[in-house]
Order: sequence, then C-alpha cells, then structure tokens
Amino acid sequence: MLLEHIQSPADVKKLSLAEMNTLAEDIRTLLIEKLSRHGGHCGPNLGMVEATIALHYVFDSPRDKIVFDVSHQSYPHKMLTGRVAAFLSESHYDDVSGYSEPSESEHDFFVIGHTSTSVSLAGGLAKGRDLRGETGNVIAVIGDGSLSGGEALEGLDWAAELNSNFIIVVNDNQMSIAENHGGLYENLAELRRSHGCCENNLFRAMGLDYVYVDKGNDLSSLIEAFRKVKDTNHPVVVHINTLKGKGYAPAEEDKETWHWTMPFEISTGALKQKNIGEDYNSLTAAHLLQRMKDDKTVCAITAGTPGIWGWTPSRRQEAGKQFVDVGIAEEHAVALASGMAKAGGKPVFGVCSSFLQRAYDQVSQDLCINDNPATLLVLWGSLTSMTDVTHLCHFDIPLLSGIPNLVFLAPTNREEYLAMLDWSLAYDRHPVAIRVPVGEPRSATRPVPTDFSELNKSELVSRGKDVAILGLGNFFALGEQVSSALKDRGIEATLINPRFISGLDESLLDSLVSDHRLVVTLEDGALEGGYGEKVARHFGPTSVKTLCFGARKEFVDRYAPADFFAANHLTVPQIVEDILQSLGGF
Amino acid sequence: MLLEHIQSPADVKKLSLAEMNTLAEDIRTLLIEKLSRHGGHCGPNLGMVEATIALHYVFDSPRDKIVFDVSHQSYPHKMLTGRVAAFLSESHYDDVSGYSEPSESEHDFFVIGHTSTSVSLAGGLAKGRDLRGETGNVIAVIGDGSLSGGEALEGLDWAAELNSNFIIVVNDNQMSIAENHGGLYENLAELRRSHGCCENNLFRAMGLDYVYVDKGNDLSSLIEAFRKVKDTNHPVVVHINTLKGKGYAPAEEDKETWHWTMPFEISTGALKQKNIGEDYNSLTAAHLLQRMKDDKTVCAITAGTPGIWGWTPSRRQEAGKQFVDVGIAEEHAVALASGMAKAGGKPVFGVCSSFLQRAYDQVSQDLCINDNPATLLVLWGSLTSMTDVTHLCHFDIPLLSGIPNLVFLAPTNREEYLAMLDWSLAYDRHPVAIRVPVGEPRSATRPVPTDFSELNKSELVSRGKDVAILGLGNFFALGEQVSSALKDRGIEATLINPRFISGLDESLLDSLVSDHRLVVTLEDGALEGGYGEKVARHFGPTSVKTLCFGARKEFVDRYAPADFFAANHLTVPQIVEDILQSLGGF
Repeated sequence: MLLEHIQSPADVKKLSLAEMNTLAEDIRTLLIEKLSRHGGHCGPNLGMVEATIALHYVFDSPRDKIVFDVSHQSYPHKMLTGRVAAFLSESHYDDVSGYSEPSESEHDFFVIGHTSTSVSLAGGLAKGRDLRGETGNVIAVIGDGSLSGGEALEGLDWAAELNSNFIIVVNDNQMSIAENHGGLYENLAELRRSHGCCENNLFRAMGLDYVYVDKGNDLSSLIEAFRKVKDTNHPVVVHINTLKGKGYAPAEEDKETWHWTMPFEISTGALKQKNIGEDYNSLTAAHLLQRMKDDKTVCAITAGTPGIWGWTPSRRQEAGKQFVDVGIAEEHAVALASGMAKAGGKPVFGVCSSFLQRAYDQVSQDLCINDNPATLLVLWGSLTSMTDVTHLCHFDIPLLSGIPNLVFLAPTNREEYLAMLDWSLAYDRHPVAIRVPVGEPRSATRPVPTDFSELNKSELVSRGKDVAILGLGNFFALGEQVSSALKDRGIEATLINPRFISGLDESLLDSLVSDHRLVVTLEDGALEGGYGEKVARHFGPTSVKTLCFGARKEFVDRYAPADFFAANHLTVPQIVEDILQSLGGF
Repeated sequence: MLLEHIQSPADVKKLSLAEMNTLAEDIRTLLIEKLSRHGGHCGPNLGMVEATIALHYVFDSPRDKIVFDVSHQSYPHKMLTGRVAAFLSESHYDDVSGYSEPSESEHDFFVIGHTSTSVSLAGGLAKGRDLRGETGNVIAVIGDGSLSGGEALEGLDWAAELNSNFIIVVNDNQMSIAENHGGLYENLAELRRSHGCCENNLFRAMGLDYVYVDKGNDLSSLIEAFRKVKDTNHPVVVHINTLKGKGYAPAEEDKETWHWTMPFEISTGALKQKNIGEDYNSLTAAHLLQRMKDDKTVCAITAGTPGIWGWTPSRRQEAGKQFVDVGIAEEHAVALASGMAKAGGKPVFGVCSSFLQRAYDQVSQDLCINDNPATLLVLWGSLTSMTDVTHLCHFDIPLLSGIPNLVFLAPTNREEYLAMLDWSLAYDRHPVAIRVPVGEPRSATRPVPTDFSELNKSELVSRGKDVAILGLGNFFALGEQVSSALKDRGIEATLINPRFISGLDESLLDSLVSDHRLVVTLEDGALEGGYGEKVARHFGPTSVKTLCFGARKEFVDRYAPADFFAANHLTVPQIVEDILQSLGGF
C-alpha cells in the first residue's frame, strides 16, 4: 500500500498525479476499514481525501499551517502526517484521537472539537506570524455545516482586515450534520450552480477574495487552485465543491446517517450492533411529537444536531413547522426560543451540554433576564456521555445554576423526566432547563408529581440520621447504592432527590441539622461551581460537615469512565469509606 | 412643544410631514437637554430620530412589534410611547431605564442591553406569531456596530428560512462605538456609495430581500420605504443610511466620544466634570504601550470597546499594528488571542466582565483546552461598576474560575496589578486572566512579587487566630476594614490576600484548622459558583465554619450600591456582626 510509505507530507510531494490518486484510494480503504470496526466520523473525512492530499502537495506543513475546523474532517490529514499506523491495525486505532491534536504531531496546531473556530484560530496564527515578522501560509479549512456558527462568521468578517497571507478553504459538501439550513447555504448552492460566478457572493460581500473549485474531489483541479493562492498577500477564500461520503456508496446515499457511524459491515453498511431499545433521546422526540399534535404552539428547536435527541428525518417531517433546525447556531437558537416564548409559543431547545457552552450569554441575557418561559433540554450532561476533551459534558451545572430566574431541574427517572417536561410546557413564570438523564431509562419506583411550581422543593426519599445523601439527577442511583452500602454498615442514612439544581430546599436542609453530622452531595458533573458547593456554603456556618463528590477540575481526554470514577473517588466503596472516615470511625 | 402631546404612537399617525419634522426637533431638544444633565447614549439616539418617527407612523405598535438592538438607540421610541415625561423634567429622568424595558411599556418586548440580539429575538416573535396563526409585522432594528456580532450574523442567516413577514432595519451610521471594523462594513460603505445597487450585497447573499434608503434622516424617504415593506410576506432588510449624532454639532464631529457621554455643557460640548486623575483603564493602556515598544509581539485586542480600557484614538495610533479592534465579536477575539499566542505573539484581550459572557465557550475550548498563554483582562468585574441589569459585572468569577488550565488572578492594588500583567506577558505555561481592579487605584503598602508562577500561592498578610478573612481582589480593602473593626472588638483576625481566584492555597488554608474556628470569604461578585463556595467546600469536611460574603443570586437593575451592599450584608458592621454571631457571642 502506497500510503504505508508516507512518513510525512514531504513524501506526498514526490508523487505523480497517478500515484496521488492511488494514495486517495488507499486512504479511503483504510478509513472505511477503521470506521467499520471502530466507528467515528465517516462522511466528512471521505469527502476531504483529495483536498487533503492536494493541500499537502502544494503547501509545506508545518511551516505552512493548516487548521482543520471541528477536525472531524482531519483523518486523511492524520494519515499523511506520520500517523498512518493508527489506521493500519486495530490495536493502534486508539493511538490517535478523533480530532486534531498538537500532542500527536507538529502538523496539528490546536485541539479542536467544537465547530466554527478554524477561521479565528488560524487568523490568530496569521496575525502572530505578522507580529513576529515571519512568513509562510496560514490555511483555515472550514465547512460541513460550520459556516453558520457565529464565531465563524465573526472570523470571516474580521479576516478582510488582515492585510497579509490567509487562505480559507471552504469545504462545501452541501450538508451540515443533517441537511444545511440558513440563507448562506442557498448562496453556496447558487455559487455551485454558477461555478462561482453568480452575482451574490457571501465571501466577496465580506470583503474577501474568492476562488471556486467545482471538482472538489479532483486532484488536479485542487492542486491548480491551491497553487494559485499559495503565498497570496491577502485573505482569499477557496470554495471547493466536495461530495460528502465520497467513495462509499451507503455514505454517499444517506449523508446524515453516515456523518458519524458506529461499527458496521462494509459490504452492506448495516450496523454491527443494533440499536438497543429505548433511550432518553428517542423518548423525548416521541413524547414531544405527541404534545405537538395537541398543541400547535409547541416547537422543537435544534442547532444542527437533530439526531442526538431522537429527531430522525421521519419525525422531523411529521413535526413539520413545529420543528426548527437553525443550523449550527446555538446563540441564535436560545434567543429564538426566548422570542417564541414571549410571543406565546412553547419552544423546546434541545442541546448537548458541551455545545450549550456556546450560548451562555444568550441564556443569561436573551432568555433569563427577560424571564420568558422557554424550555431548554440539556442533553448528555454527565461524566460518562462524552469522553473526548473537546466534548466533555461536565460543565453545564456550574454554567447554568448561577443564572437568576432559570429553573434548572434534574430528573432521576423516566416518569419524573416526562412529568417535568410536560410541566415546563405549561409553566409560564420562568424559563426551565431540564438536565435530561443519560443511560438506559429507569422506571420510577415512587409516585411522581405533575407540578413542580413549588420551586426548589426536594423529595425526601427516606429519613435516617447522622448522614444525609443528596443524589442529584443521574447520581440519585449512586445515592441509592451508597445508602444501601451504609445500611450494611449499620448506618441508616437520609436519602434526598434534590430535583432542583438551581436552588436548595433550605427548610429541608435546615431540618437535618438537629440529628445529622454530615451531608454528602453526589453530582454527575464538575465540582467547581457546582451543586455540592452550594450545599457546602449553606452548611458552612453550621456544625454539619459536608462532603462533595463529583469531578475535580481538569480537562481529561478519552478516559475510561471506570478509571475516571476511581480517580475522582466516585465508586461506592470509596464514597462509603470517605463517609465513614468523616463520621469518625463510626 | 408638540412632543408633549404625543401620548402613544396613535398620535404620531395624525401628524403631517411638517409636524413630524417639528416632532423630530422636539425629540432632539429633549434628548440633548437630558443627556447634558444626566449623561447616556447620545450619538446612536440622535441618528435614529426620524427613523423612529417613521416606524411609528407606518407601523401599528404594539400589534406590530419593533425590537431595538442594544436599545441605546431606543430613547426616541420611549418618547413616542408614553414615556416623554422621563425626558421633560430632571426629577423624572430616572423613571425610565437606558434600554428597552417591557415593564415600562407594552411597546417594548425585551430587556436588551447586549448587542447583536435583535434579529434573533424578533425572529422568535415572528416564528411564535406564525405558530399561533396570528398576523402583524415584526421589525428588528439593528446597527451601530452590532452587525459584526456572531449572534446577529447567525440570526440573519436563519432569517432567510422564515417564509413569512419579517423586517430587519439596518441602522447604518457608519460607526461602531469606535470606527467600524471588518469586511462587512466595507460592504455597507459600497452599498451606500452605489445607493444599494452594487454587485456585492451581504444581505442578498444571506438570502434576504433588500431595500436601500439613502436619506436615513429624511422622514418622507423613510416612510416610503417602510410602507413598501409593510405586510411583506417574506424577510426583507431595509438598510438606512443615518448620521450618528445628527443635529448636535459636537456629536456629529466626534462620533466616538459622543457615543455615550457624561453630563456636558450644551453650548460647548465640554464635560461638566473633568476626568478625575488616573484610573485602572488609562493605567493599563499606558503600561501596555510601553511594553509594546520593547516587544513588537505584544498586541492589545478589543472587541469594539477600546475606550473602556484607556485606548484613546491617539494611543491606538501609537500602537499601530499592535492594536487590533475586531469589532463587536468577542468570540472571535478570544480565539484570535489563542492563535496569536500559539504563534508566539503576546496578545492581551481586554473585555468588560459582562461582555466576556459572550465568549465562555471560546475561553474554554479555543483558549484553555489548548493552554495557549494569552492574557485576558477582565474589566469592570465588580458589584459596583455597572448597575443596569443587562450590564451587571457580577458573574465573571463563577464563569471563569471553573475552567481548567486558566490562571485567574485578583490583584488588590496598582503595583500588584501591573506586576501580574507583566508576569502574564512573560509566562508561557497557561492562559492568564486578570480581574482588573475597579475604582481609584490604591498603592501597595507591602512589597509585591514579580513572579506568580507558584500557582495558587496566597499572601498571608497578618496571622491571628480564631477567624481568618480571605479578601479577594477589590474586596481585600473590605477585608482590611473588617479586620480592623474586629480588632476593636478584641479579635486578632488572620488576613489573607488570595491573589488567585482559580485555585486555593490549600496548605495555607489547612494550616488554619488548628487555631481557627471560622473562615470568612469576601468577594466582589456573585456568590453562586463563586470563590467563597470553593472555600466552603474545602473546609466542608473539617470543623472550621465558613461564612461567604458576596451578592446573592438575583438580577438587580439600576440599584444604589449602598442599598445593594446593605441588602447583601456587605457593610462592615453587618459582616462583623455575622462573624461575632458565628463565633458564638465572642
């Protein structure tokens, strides 16, 4: 295999066009092979094979610096920059991450996992180069739905002011994760139809020079275009028309499904492991669809990620105008929800914990200062749902729980979750965020209320003494386990389901002081600024001691949840031991 | 005065063109009168007088809904919607806020103070209207520098998909707060020069219909344009060319200075109160200018607000390429800083605490995961610096202190601040944020170190017993006062300057356990998720009690700092009393 002999981009430069085409085939073969066994981003990488080869053929990485947006289109780049071993044999698949990673290679400049950042980050490299009086090309690769994100548009707008070398490659594969949304994608389509010659041109209107490459999977067209812009003395956009999923028929045909895939059979495209029953995501979409039928003002909103909360194409079609995909644009999504709620609609914005980070100010300003009764569903908020450093879902509790007016709920089972969701649709006094549980849905073992308007009211599940356990949301189950283990040690603990993240049930907590010496908090997220610290502050002036369990402050990457739990003292035996020690050898 | 007889927009509709011109004069007279005594946003409002009259003449507010971006261009709107009394006599000036405010009038739909939100918020009103099967026009007014913000661009992109009535009025006054930056403003200039007919058109490229009004301060042109788009069945942009500061010569001449003004003499434009000596902002710019001369890689970055940290036009000119104004685009600014630091530059991004909220994800992902050594200066972070609800600077400690890798510093005086700033420029291991002190600069009374690379090392200012006071940043001075008041009561307290917000000096804290019963934290910000809670969690498992002082969780608006401090138990007598009570009647 030719690819095995590529140690670095220097080896690419020695190849003939025919050899590069062979190389492209090799890359696709290894990509499909690895993805079929390991899973990962499929369509975006398949579409970028030729462009990546051409970039390395024309430019001189790492002196010339290529920054891949989201970096889920960076696997071919990894193969050409000394990391092909991680695609050759299964035992080395995890030697590289799924995103660009400077610790792996001098050809990667940033750890990137959120979308829409490459123009700004690469713009910084270009400005830094200029400040230092250095030379070299800086290339930002963006596309695959990322252009609609505010940060990318801010970056494009700014780029026009950089009076020096800067090349922005727009990988236009005609898709976001799902279909593209927003006016700018219509403009891209118009540009494709006119071979870059139509009157309306977003990039020129932003003050940038522009080059169009119609055959974005054709090596000679790409090489010609990149040569043309190499060493440019001003910012220029190279718009390349690529085919998402190129070279693997199932991925070309169903681009949304094949954006990211679990392991599959190469011959048929069938997933190796079938979907295992109901999950909270599918449950959510099915439930909301039902509500939409009864109430035409209920409207689900996604920012380019419908699939992560059960909105399959058929469900979206069924919802019709009651489903809005704003494209990758979380800031807009939150403000839109606020406006809809103000106008009497019932918007439900579902967003992954990690991506909600992009809209903190909109949650605070547009939504919560205005106190409009929209519903936010915080998806995947947990220490276990995502383990890539750029996609950690650890931080939503600290992020949201300090925002005044927001009611932030932590359901502990399926029935409680759906009751909270229904209640939030009817509630008209404040915005409500719900931390959607993760994992296999648990059934309620106790009656669940339908009304949560007595804010901050916790559920006292069982009353013991000496030690009380507050098991928040996903970690209520852990609280049950700890409680049971303590019982084996002769301790009858009090067990509480806090239900509300955004405020404490002060009267319940104060009632503990008389016969409890220790209050324990368990939260499925970061400790710093989180729920436990509020409880610790509450009991600070009292004689009751507190122990907070959650994740310590660190960026972790690709961790095994079991190891991570052990390192953070989150296993049942560790928690029990800490409790016993605090109680003084009880 | 004709304006005094305008009770509601219905009265505007009865006027002739000549009367409306008189009305415009009346509005300007009252605006200038009020601003000269009270201060406030000047230029943006003066430019929008005719457009506001025309909007109310053509549309039927509140059935037709007008949403003013930032709303510092909404004073004329307030005068025409039943609130003229707040502009007529000084005793009523504070009856209205400086921003749009639904609690004041049914003609205001949102509390808006941050920029770039109106398109998304109004878009939500339009979508909500459609879901409910209602009719009526929805109008977003945007401009004055706001267009470059990511949220606005996301909103424009999305708007093209709304297949119903939506009108976006772009108030193009050729300025941001300072001069405009970014490629899109070049496009606006081109559109002005060509009377809306040039080939490049950002709005058309975003898929929107477009109308240009060259005479944006001419009532009949405006009325004609608004009539044309009224009841449109699709989204349309009305681009109006206005004059910022129109009708007041000093404001027309120096648009940047007159964006917002302190009270002034109308005849001369001279400020009534002269600038009173040195402040931390001016200090910062002067200091950085000096560093820039020694090191050509030092680069200051602002997101459209150079003035708030001392970057006057002359200083900007002196800094040349070492000063970058990205326009209102905080997300881009943070990513740009990360990229520059990666390339070996020394970027310093200065941003108001309240506006930093717009870039949480960029601080976390683009900057801190990548651990690039950029410097963030968090300006105005304090309970006292801004008292409008949309501009509260209470939340930066909770926001930043949970982000791994970030070193977040809280200097307590001038010398310590500048030492930290210099150190951050030289430090190459982590990004550094500095919470720039507020108020009149204090001089150091103790020696200040030049090296802060022993992370989380606090300064033990005096060692007492029983009670320890951690006075963070601005509130170190409060700690000194409390300490002194306790001495009068016979208590020799330990006083600590934490220096680091982002981590605790655990060995120092642990050394207190033996002879301290109470640890008190004082922070000039929100309590929830803040510094005190980290200290409370640290001491949770011990017998040491904790008391945290800061602001409780609430959105407050236009408060008197003294009242606010009293309500939050932040006065010296209150703090002393709470301490004595906790110590048990010591």
